Amino acid sequence: MAGNAFGTLFRLTTFGESHGKAIGGVLDGCPAGMELDLPAVQSELLRRKPGQSSLTTGRQEPDEIHWLSGLYEGKTTGAPIAFIAHNQDARTEDYAHLEKAFRPSHADFTTWAKYGIRDHRGGGRSSARETWARVAGGAIARQFLAPLGIEVSAYVERVHDTGMVSVPQFYNREAVDAHAVRCPDLSLAESMANKILLAKKAGDTVGGTLVVVARGVPAGLGEPVFDKLQATLAHALWSLPAVKSMELGSGLQGTYMHGSEHNDPWIQTKEGEFETTSNHSGGIQGGISNGSEIVIRLGFKPVSTLLKTQDSVNEAGEPIQLEGRGRHDPCVLPRAVPLVEAMVLLVLADHSLKNNSAQL
Amino acid sequence: MAGNAFGTLFRLTTFGESHGKAIGGVLDGCPAGMELDLPAVQSELLRRKPGQSSLTTGRQEPDEIHWLSGLYEGKTTGAPIAFIAHNQDARTEDYAHLEKAFRPSHADFTTWAKYGIRDHRGGGRSSARETWARVAGGAIARQFLAPLGIEVSAYVERVHDTGMVSVPQFYNREAVDAHAVRCPDLSLAESMANKILLAKKAGDTVGGTLVVVARGVPAGLGEPVFDKLQATLAHALWSLPAVKSMELGSGLQGTYMHGSEHNDPWIQTKEGEFETTSNHSGGIQGGISNGSEIVIRLGFKPVSTLLKTQDSVNEAGEPIQLEGRGRHDPCVLPRAVPLVEAMVLLVLADHSLKNNSAQL
Amino acid sequence: MAGNAFGTLFRLTTFGESHGKAIGGVLDGCPAGMELDLPAVQSELLRRKPGQSSLTTGRQEPDEIHWLSGLYEGKTTGAPIAFIAHNQDARTEDYAHLEKAFRPSHADFTTWAKYGIRDHRGGGRSSARETWARVAGGAIARQFLAPLGIEVSAYVERVHDTGMVSVPQFYNREAVDAHAVRCPDLSLAESMANKILLAKKAGDTVGGTLVVVARGVPAGLGEPVFDKLQATLAHALWSLPAVKSMELGSGLQGTYMHGSEHNDPWIQTKEGEFETTSNHSGGIQGGISNGSEIVIRLGFKPVSTLLKTQDSVNEAGEPIQLEGRGRHDPCVLPRAVPLVEAMVLLVLADHSLKNNSAQL
Amino acid sequence: MAGNAFGTLFRLTTFGESHGKAIGGVLDGCPAGMELDLPAVQSELLRRKPGQSSLTTGRQEPDEIHWLSGLYEGKTTGAPIAFIAHNQDARTEDYAHLEKAFRPSHADFTTWAKYGIRDHRGGGRSSARETWARVAGGAIARQFLAPLGIEVSAYVERVHDTGMVSVPQFYNREAVDAHAVRCPDLSLAESMANKILLAKKAGDTVGGTLVVVARGVPAGLGEPVFDKLQATLAHALWSLPAVKSMELGSGLQGTYMHGSEHNDPWIQTKEGEFETTSNHSGGIQGGISNGSEIVIRLGFKPVSTLLKTQDSVNEAGEPIQLEGRGRHDPCVLPRAVPLVEAMVLLVLADHSLKNNSAQL
Repeated sequence: MAGNAFGTLFRLTTFGESHGKAIGGVLDGCPAGMELDLPAVQSELLRRKPGQSSLTTGRQEPDEIHWLSGLYEGKTTGAPIAFIAHNQDARTEDYAHLEKAFRPSHADFTTWAKYGIRDHRGGGRSSARETWARVAGGAIARQFLAPLGIEVSAYVERVHDTGMVSVPQFYNREAVDAHAVRCPDLSLAESMANKILLAKKAGDTVGGTLVVVARGVPAGLGEPVFDKLQATLAHALWSLPAVKSMELGSGLQGTYMHGSEHNDPWIQTKEGEFETTSNHSGGIQGGISNGSEIVIRLGFKPVSTLLKTQDSVNEAGEPIQLEGRGRHDPCVLPRAVPLVEAMVLLVLADHSLKNNSAQL
Repeated sequence: MAGNAFGTLFRLTTFGESHGKAIGGVLDGCPAGMELDLPAVQSELLRRKPGQSSLTTGRQEPDEIHWLSGLYEGKTTGAPIAFIAHNQDARTEDYAHLEKAFRPSHADFTTWAKYGIRDHRGGGRSSARETWARVAGGAIARQFLAPLGIEVSAYVERVHDTGMVSVPQFYNREAVDAHAVRCPDLSLAESMANKILLAKKAGDTVGGTLVVVARGVPAGLGEPVFDKLQATLAHALWSLPAVKSMELGSGLQGTYMHGSEHNDPWIQTKEGEFETTSNHSGGIQGGISNGSEIVIRLGFKPVSTLLKTQDSVNEAGEPIQLEGRGRHDPCVLPRAVPLVEAMVLLVLADHSLKNNSAQL
Repeated sequence: MAGNAFGTLFRLTTFGESHGKAIGGVLDGCPAGMELDLPAVQSELLRRKPGQSSLTTGRQEPDEIHWLSGLYEGKTTGAPIAFIAHNQDARTEDYAHLEKAFRPSHADFTTWAKYGIRDHRGGGRSSARETWARVAGGAIARQFLAPLGIEVSAYVERVHDTGMVSVPQFYNREAVDAHAVRCPDLSLAESMANKILLAKKAGDTVGGTLVVVARGVPAGLGEPVFDKLQATLAHALWSLPAVKSMELGSGLQGTYMHGSEHNDPWIQTKEGEFETTSNHSGGIQGGISNGSEIVIRLGFKPVSTLLKTQDSVNEAGEPIQLEGRGRHDPCVLPRAVPLVEAMVLLVLADHSLKNNSAQL
Repeated sequence: MAGNAFGTLFRLTTFGESHGKAIGGVLDGCPAGMELDLPAVQSELLRRKPGQSSLTTGRQEPDEIHWLSGLYEGKTTGAPIAFIAHNQDARTEDYAHLEKAFRPSHADFTTWAKYGIRDHRGGGRSSARETWARVAGGAIARQFLAPLGIEVSAYVERVHDTGMVSVPQFYNREAVDAHAVRCPDLSLAESMANKILLAKKAGDTVGGTLVVVARGVPAGLGEPVFDKLQATLAHALWSLPAVKSMELGSGLQGTYMHGSEHNDPWIQTKEGEFETTSNHSGGIQGGISNGSEIVIRLGFKPVSTLLKTQDSVNEAGEPIQLEGRGRHDPCVLPRAVPLVEAMVLLVLADHSLKNNSAQL
């Protein structure tokens, strides 16, 4: 209940701080008998790795995953799957000046207010480093969902004021990863990269939006009241650092439409499938997937850590000048892509297992 | 896990269908010894009542609350508080033509896909009628939070294309309820009402946005990883019907800013309080409340039930013409105000109890 | 988390006090599409009803069940099933003298210590009256489990010092209910009845033991570590009032055996089934059912409410004389039979649903 | 929900198999600001360590604990506390002959029936090795409870037919650990040790009983309905391997008493404390602690692994002869003492945190 676990039947617990010994996770509830492709998990982790390009933080972590339990001869056994990565490039000295300081728009003050104690080194538990275990868990979820035909892919749609104007759609990983920015429109991607590098040069940071699409989701996932599919997706996605907005299907634009425009008409295809001819609903109706693509847009704020000097106060209430030090992403979006996918995958795996018990 | 309960320590379970015998809820975990103002709960329910103005559905339900348990001599005892309202104005005959039909953008198809059976009368469990119990639970949460200085208030910000342009702020209930639309800007409210009535006349519906503000929330609420305060708020709010978008603090606009503009600088007030001089964070940093106002904007789609004829299909896949019948809101926003407040109140009450165990 | 709900996927929440308006429950997670035999549920409730014989409390409650939600045309819909019974024969005046008193071995003192307030009338939430909703929930579980071939039956094995010496076995309801004591050995049952009436005449009470057997449970139910089948059964059964002991399979006697005697050898039957030739394990190995009968013995204490005068103290710490008033069972065992069955049924239904997700 | 976690607010998740890389745990919800005595935790683990005397299994594991997260400058931070131990003396070759075999009264068959796959090496997840993490978690709980005056101690009461006849009471660790058997009556302990060694010599095993006492528990812990203190204790204790019986307070003997003998009369002491003059209730009334000692007796079966040859079958249903190999305890009781204490400590810590929210 202290919020370090997510999911009900497919449940991930994470642990570890930015500058502690290790970060890791325990995935409980993955069905037995699943062949797990371990290198595929590692390769997903590399998508989130710091230091992968000039657009991301310079911290160098191999982020090699160590599997501790739950597998036997390459298959899941129904036992909890535990995994860790050792922290290696923690530069604690970079944070010494922050021990008592409150960085603007960081968790420093709030952690202190809540717990009366905080591990200031690299943000401790509030560091984006915690998300490593989410990506590992999400990668297992992906392998669980793949045979069911479910795919999840995200891409960067906008950086600062430079963005795609086309309707959100599913892009495969090859298209997304073709540019380090992870925008499938390569010429826009290049412009976005320039925006990021410009901000970085100025010691500043930028935000933007990202789109995630799940396709192949069968009709029937989601619980109709408090655990609507969009509600658990929202829970999952808003638990990521830096999220400022979320839109489902037609999103904000849909709120300007009339019902007669917004409604998605039902037809039956020649193959006997039920389909809607538009997808303003974003694949979810009454909290339950309807078989269409699930389409979500997320807004991310500009990263709070700057390489500029900022005014602030310390625990004693004294005004201080915060130097801009440490290694941080000038824009969270490229590395957010695997995080967002992971959270959506975890949610879909969980609802998929729940759905095993919906009908007699 | 079937999603009819919300919260961990302050936990509401709801039950009942639109056209069943009764709707109700059980609130478990409300601390003992709290004097409960029962008429105040009833008056909150009246804010959500159908038929309260020409802007809302014509269904007439007294929505009188019956308290079944958990109270002794006007005080909570620590036992679960159960309450129900009997359904009275259900016109099942209005729904006979829908027994096998899938209304566009409703839960008809998805419920059938999930369960293989559905109570089509009035949408069954997917009806907005279910939210009655949420408002009752939220009203109890409000009374729990009031002595802690926590207040929650929502208002309609925009209907279709008519909206307020001022920065979101806290308006008290008197200001909000001064007009049936629940927009505190009375002249705009009148324009909004006209928009709604115009749509209604055309058998159509409109959407818009709503703002909810929580003030007096002490620093420290929220759990730092998966149960960040915004994540559980998102879970709560996205579980409401018709939500299409959510923004926290600076929201979508914040994603266009640089970090150096967006960061909220810390100061210490003369009274020794820590405060930020701006509130782009929307009152939450690192998933934990920072003492500032929590500010959230929600977009609602236009209601899916129209009084126009629409094309659709039935369970057999046959094309049908859906007549526009039944009694429904032409715009969900005025009645969404108490629902949104209720969900925020439930979340804050739950986090408040959790926080009792954060420190030694 | 305040403990008024039980189960994970098949989850029962109960509410209501002995002398409140109503008692009831909400069952969430029962799969959709199950035809529910409502009179069968009512008849199970009659087995637990007070006033059914001279051996039980004289309180007269019709205990008629009112179904509030979750059913449509006689079938479950996947929505929560809510049900209540109105309290009718509450004689609050019988409890006036207890308002500030602590009855020995009752929940009076502990409730007051925990909550600082208590509804003293009939024991409030601690009354055995709360178990009404458990029997209703268990009756639904029974109907869910029956098509899977799972049956659960309990019987009274011993009252005070009069008891069966034969090895525990499955007796069907006809055999169990042949005598009001619910011991299938009719001549012993008569002796037990005399013991109870003798105690009752003396204003005193007696305890004893009860055996519950589940048969037809397929191998594979139960989770291997903290939620072993016996662990959740223990949780369920020890949540019943007055339980003092529990034994599984060979029980206490098994602790006097050597491993070589106690081990249950495996064979394969001609039909290709795996079976053990003895059942000291009581149907559970490593926390998971093995296909044999699950056999549990429970000891119940003599009821704490006496019709004798007893010494005690009140909230002010003053010595008082407690008159023996009110209407209570002189022996809990005959009415405990349906309670015990209900709890075992709820546990098996929950594990059965969980098992849907154990393997790919 | 796959049952690898225990507790609500003070929640332990465990992972790891007997012959995997490591075993470990994650404790979530321990309040921040607690100074943790790490060597004290290690010393509790040594009490459970295999190979500590001739009475226990010969497997040699250093069982050194590695702390991965959740601590900063020796104090808890509110973040999850993760810890592991590497498996070192796993002799997988000892289990080669068991790959397809079902050992009598082991989890071999049931694991296979549930998951369709099993890690046969050393029992995999069903191994008592899993309990390592419980003892680590319990040791943290002990340090949390100590400042509240709560102490928990267990001792061996009987081995096979040799046992103490005195009334259960609290013995401190020094008294318990004075003999390797962990019976505080030293001359009986010596006889017990002989029983165990005799059985071992014969390739056989023995069971017995153990008593655990919690003292200093304040009145008010436990939730009144499904999560009664004894119900969660039962859940915890019955999740330990080899448990066959449990008794609370007067236990089985109490079921032979009349209510007038069994009731515990209330008095007020000179110091103004409420106390009972007897403790048949075992410290719990109505599911809530009453301030008296909590007294529980547990029966353990003789260990199922023998060094004798046994008949059994394999997965193909063929009769096989199981040789007695591997390293195992001839009697589980001495090493069960720290396990039982750990589970009781975890339960009390969890209820203690829950109680923070019982009253306004």
